[in-house]
Amino acid sequence: MSLTGWVYFDGTYMAAQDAKLSPFDRGFLFAQAAYEVTAVYNHKLIDFEPHLQRLSRTLAGLEIEAPREDLQQVHEQLIQRNSLREGLIYLHVSAGMHGLRDFSGPEMLKPSVFAFANPKQLIGEAARDGIATISMADTRWHRRDLKTTQLVSQSLAYRAARRAGAVTAILHEDGVVTEAASANVWLVTQDGQLVTRNLSHAILPGITRARLISLLQNGADQIEERTFTLDEVRHAQEVFTSSAGAMIAPVLSLDGDMIGDGQPGPVTRAVQAAYYEFIGADISALDWS
Amino acid sequence: MSLTGWVYFDGTYMAAQDAKLSPFDRGFLFAQAAYEVTAVYNHKLIDFEPHLQRLSRTLAGLEIEAPREDLQQVHEQLIQRNSLREGLIYLHVSAGMHGLRDFSGPEMLKPSVFAFANPKQLIGEAARDGIATISMADTRWHRRDLKTTQLVSQSLAYRAARRAGAVTAILHEDGVVTEAASANVWLVTQDGQLVTRNLSHAILPGITRARLISLLQNGADQIEERTFTLDEVRHAQEVFTSSAGAMIAPVLSLDGDMIGDGQPGPVTRAVQAAYYEFIGADISALDWS
Repeated sequence: MSLTGWVYFDGTYMAAQDAKLSPFDRGFLFAQAAYEVTAVYNHKLIDFEPHLQRLSRTLAGLEIEAPREDLQQVHEQLIQRNSLREGLIYLHVSAGMHGLRDFSGPEMLKPSVFAFANPKQLIGEAARDGIATISMADTRWHRRDLKTTQLVSQSLAYRAARRAGAVTAILHEDGVVTEAASANVWLVTQDGQLVTRNLSHAILPGITRARLISLLQNGADQIEERTFTLDEVRHAQEVFTSSAGAMIAPVLSLDGDMIGDGQPGPVTRAVQAAYYEFIGADISALDWS
Repeated sequence: MSLTGWVYFDGTYMAAQDAKLSPFDRGFLFAQAAYEVTAVYNHKLIDFEPHLQRLSRTLAGLEIEAPREDLQQVHEQLIQRNSLREGLIYLHVSAGMHGLRDFSGPEMLKPSVFAFANPKQLIGEAARDGIATISMADTRWHRRDLKTTQLVSQSLAYRAARRAGAVTAILHEDGVVTEAASANVWLVTQDGQLVTRNLSHAILPGITRARLISLLQNGADQIEERTFTLDEVRHAQEVFTSSAGAMIAPVLSLDGDMIGDGQPGPVTRAVQAAYYEFIGADISALDWS
C-alpha cells in the first residue's frame, strides 16, 4: 500500500503520498482520461514523440483540451527527481473537475495532469525466459485505438491469467485475436512469416509495435499486418508480445498448450536484439545462454 | 466549478470540496469502480434494495470486496445532512488504492466508498414536455449489465446530443437499439404493444425499468421484452425512457424526425402516473394540461 517517489500533480512536483484529487474529477467519475506509459532506459525516454502524438489523438477523441504544460519537461524532471535509470513514466490526463456530476460537462473540458515514475526492469526475466498466457474474450469498448483509463477488462484479464498460473491474456473476439491485455501480439507462422494484427479501432496502435515494424523493415524481413486467430497462435513457430512496459516478451504457451518447442525462438531473439540495440542496451551484457 | 453540500468519503462526512483521494486509486487508474444512483423523493429513497443488489453484482464482476459500511445509513445521513427533498444519491465503490500502478493488484481488492447528494427536480420539464434525441452507435464494452464508471461513451453521447440540440442519445448496434445514454428505452408500437429490450449483457438492468414492469403487469398491460430497431423507434406511436435520474421522459423525436404526433402520448402519461403514484408524488398537483 505504500507509495514512494516524486510525482507531478496539479502543476507541481510532490511526494507520491501527498497527491490528492477531488473525487468529482471526471477521470474518477467517468473514466474520461487519456494515459501514456513511456519506457525509460539509461535515464532516457524511448520514442517519446509518438507517445505525445497518440496522447493528442486520445484527448481529441475524449473531447479534452490539450494540457498546457511542457510534457517532455515533466517527464525529464520525473526521471531526474526519481533517479530513474530503467522503468516507466506514467502520464494521465483527465477531463478535470467541473462541479457536481454531469455526463455532458462544460463545452471545454480543461485537463488535469498527473504523472509518476515507476522503476522497473524492462529487460528482465520475462524477456529472457518468456511467459505463459491464457486466452480470453475481449470485452473492451469499440475504440481501443484510443488509450483511455477504461481498463476494467485489462485488469480482469491479468487477474484471470494470474489465477491460471500465467502472466497475461491474449484477447480475442470469436477466436480472432485482438491483442494481449496490455501489449500487441506477433507470431511467426510455420512458413516463417512474421505477422501482427493490422491497425483499426480494434487494437491500440502500439508505439513499440510501430518501432519494430520500422526497425525490421529496414532489414530483410517483411511483416504481414492482418487479422489472425487463436488457432494460428497455438500452431505458430513463435509468438511474442510488444509493449512499452515489457518491450518484447516471448510467449511460450497458450492455455497450457506449448507454442513451438516451448522456448524463445530465433526470430523473437532477433527482434529483441534489434530493439535492444535501438534503445542502446548492451546486448553483449545479457547472459541469456 | 464550485462544489457544495456534504459528502461521505473515506469513512466520514465532510464538505464536498474537502474530499480528496489518491490518484493511485484503482477507480482513477483503471475505472475499476461500481456506482449506483438512487432517486430521493420527499426525503425518501426509491427502490433502494434493488440498487444494493445490483451494486453487489457489479462489485463481484469487478472482483471488488463488499464495502463494510451500512450503505443505507450512509444514504439516509446524506439525505438528512443535505436536507435533500428531491434528487439523487450517488454512490461510488472503487477498487481502492493498493500501491503503485499494477493491472492485477492484490488478490483482495479492498473498496473505497464515496457518496454525495445531488439535488434535482425529478418530475420536471423533461417529464412534462418530453425530450429530443439523436441516434448514436453504442461503443460501450460488452458487460453493460455491470454498472461501472467506464462511462466515456455515455459522456460523448450526451455531448453529441447537446451539440445537435437534443437531450440524450439512443444507442444502437447496427440499427438494433440497446438503450439511451443513461436510461432504458420503451416504445409503443402502431399496434399498441408496449415494448422494451430484454435483459442481457447488452444493457443495464434498470431499477426503474424493473419497477415499471412490476407496476404495469399488475395492471392490464403486458410488456413485450425483446430487441427492437431504430426504425421501430422512428415509427412508434410513443417512445419514452426510464431511469432513476429522470424517471420517465417522453421521447418526442429522433434525429429531428417527429415520433407519433410529437407530443407525450397517453400510454406514456399512464406509465408516468403509475410510477409517480408508486413514489408517493401528488399527481393532482402536476399542472400538465
